[in-house]
Amino acid sequence: MEDSVTEGPPAEPRFVLGVDSGGSGLRVALARVTSSGPPEPCGSVASGEPVPTGSAGIDAGRLIARLLPAARELLAKADGTRVAAACVGAAGMVTLGGRLRAELPGALADGLGARRTALAADVVTGYVGALGEHPGAVVAAGTGLIALGLDGRGWRRADGWGHLLGDCGGGSWIGRVGLEAALRAHDGRAGGSAALLAAAEALFGPAPGLPGLVYPRSDRPAWLASFAPEVARCAATEPADPVAAAILREAAREIAITTAAVCPPGPSAQVALTGGLPRLGEPLLRPLREELAARLPGATIVPAAGDPLEGALSLAAQVARGSLGLPTEPGLLSVHDASEGGGPAGAR
Amino acid sequence: MEDSVTEGPPAEPRFVLGVDSGGSGLRVALARVTSSGPPEPCGSVASGEPVPTGSAGIDAGRLIARLLPAARELLAKADGTRVAAACVGAAGMVTLGGRLRAELPGALADGLGARRTALAADVVTGYVGALGEHPGAVVAAGTGLIALGLDGRGWRRADGWGHLLGDCGGGSWIGRVGLEAALRAHDGRAGGSAALLAAAEALFGPAPGLPGLVYPRSDRPAWLASFAPEVARCAATEPADPVAAAILREAAREIAITTAAVCPPGPSAQVALTGGLPRLGEPLLRPLREELAARLPGATIVPAAGDPLEGALSLAAQVARGSLGLPTEPGLLSVHDASEGGGPAGAR
Repeated sequence: MEDSVTEGPPAEPRFVLGVDSGGSGLRVALARVTSSGPPEPCGSVASGEPVPTGSAGIDAGRLIARLLPAARELLAKADGTRVAAACVGAAGMVTLGGRLRAELPGALADGLGARRTALAADVVTGYVGALGEHPGAVVAAGTGLIALGLDGRGWRRADGWGHLLGDCGGGSWIGRVGLEAALRAHDGRAGGSAALLAAAEALFGPAPGLPGLVYPRSDRPAWLASFAPEVARCAATEPADPVAAAILREAAREIAITTAAVCPPGPSAQVALTGGLPRLGEPLLRPLREELAARLPGATIVPAAGDPLEGALSLAAQVARGSLGLPTEPGLLSVHDASEGGGPAGAR
Repeated sequence: MEDSVTEGPPAEPRFVLGVDSGGSGLRVALARVTSSGPPEPCGSVASGEPVPTGSAGIDAGRLIARLLPAARELLAKADGTRVAAACVGAAGMVTLGGRLRAELPGALADGLGARRTALAADVVTGYVGALGEHPGAVVAAGTGLIALGLDGRGWRRADGWGHLLGDCGGGSWIGRVGLEAALRAHDGRAGGSAALLAAAEALFGPAPGLPGLVYPRSDRPAWLASFAPEVARCAATEPADPVAAAILREAAREIAITTAAVCPPGPSAQVALTGGLPRLGEPLLRPLREELAARLPGATIVPAAGDPLEGALSLAAQVARGSLGLPTEPGLLSVHDASEGGGPAGAR
């Protein structure tokens, strides 16, 4: 990519770095910023390998070791030498981000010249990517489920507690309840679904083998979620399986309850549903529209404008311009000034 | 214990061995058998350390290595030298008992002279201990939940699928749903309980720390179940927390559904509830009696006559007399004849 300085005064374009680190891998993007308007992306790299997370939190050293070479490669291709600011959005930032907050701003200052680094929970970059600074709610629904709302007073979160404590209505939840209904049918218990039992045995083999399949795994939530599309399929066939349809209606109710807990009331709010769960289609989306209309009258359901990586670039651009339009909150969104250089910079 | 041959003809009393191996440890008991009447216990030893279970099944070698010395010690104290028969009841026998079935009958024949060995799932020894040969249903309810029914046609099982696939109404289930309700209150989601949130934070600390407490554990089901008594407490205080009371009513409904799936209909059936869950008391037992009366009209709820170790002794005595009054079924109950001596004996 050739050097193309399209703006006036600055001799070198101002670059910003956006990072999205989550369970599905690490993505790094570079963009040019101007004095106004959205950042102009000039390249990104993605790796499907997630950054390891131990009991002490996200492995900051491993993230830095993968992030800096990727960023330097992107800078070199864009004929740049440094970034003005960076934003790292990461899953687990709220509870497990301590080491990132301690090490990352200094490393990005030393390694890439970033004077300011924003650290954001992945739900925040997801929100900014989907709705920008517009008040409303973004529901990130895949294997798990979490909702983030924004209003004049700040951020508000609901659920995201994981497959044993919540994530109600998410992929693991739907798969778990669907398999439970399958095994009810196997046992002759009330509330079972022969269709879900047939689907489970077609996918996983005979029912008595299911415990031996799931409990030894370390990715039990993902395994449970792998059955969610079967629940949707059983609810979508003609005639629909009533148990499968009821499970998806209940999931829709849970998602709407979680959304309503964080979304500001009134007609100006926007609601965006992100992640893989909407791919379950109309058996989930039809009752979800009904439940959202009942619980959030006036709110508009909109498609997400962009993804979390675009949200990270947008936040980095705001930080570079010194005009962050969104509320900071410990764990969710913090900005670290590295003007002192070197080690861990203080949060503001 | 002195030698006291109270029966006539046999020069040495006939002894039988009963074994109960489960998640809470290993118990071994010796009893004298006569030509009729129940076996007369003459000693038992208990160890709180469970027999290891790997992906290949219950560790037969480890079980044998702990079982034989304990049995020889009990025999020596009773001035006996051999047992006529043995019954080993073990958790996981159905799916993970392959190595036990292959190795245990031969080892008990070689080491203790047992000519016959019955291998039983722990639910079967639990049934026999609780109800003997009477038709009905025994519900083993603790951290998990499984029901076993007996009628003229044989055994029938329901649930027992573990905390992610079922065990509906058991301790983990109640704890999980209770914690979910606590976190609903924390988030401001509909359906939450401030009382359960207060109870959870008193027991485990601030709500945001809960995921970090539960997900790294290997004993997640037991951890979830540790909250069940708090749910019962919140349902029992005056005024009762309506969410906690509803959770226990729903648990009672699930337990009754599972019981009804295995219990023969009609007025002669008996139902016994075993395990630790009944200790939750009236907030669970009152709706359970109502639900059972509605789903199994005529069935009599009875206290368990004895525990699984007594059930194992009873089965061993029946096998010693050659008069097993209960149906055999692969995985649930099998009798192995070691008259050929030595290695693995065939199942009959």
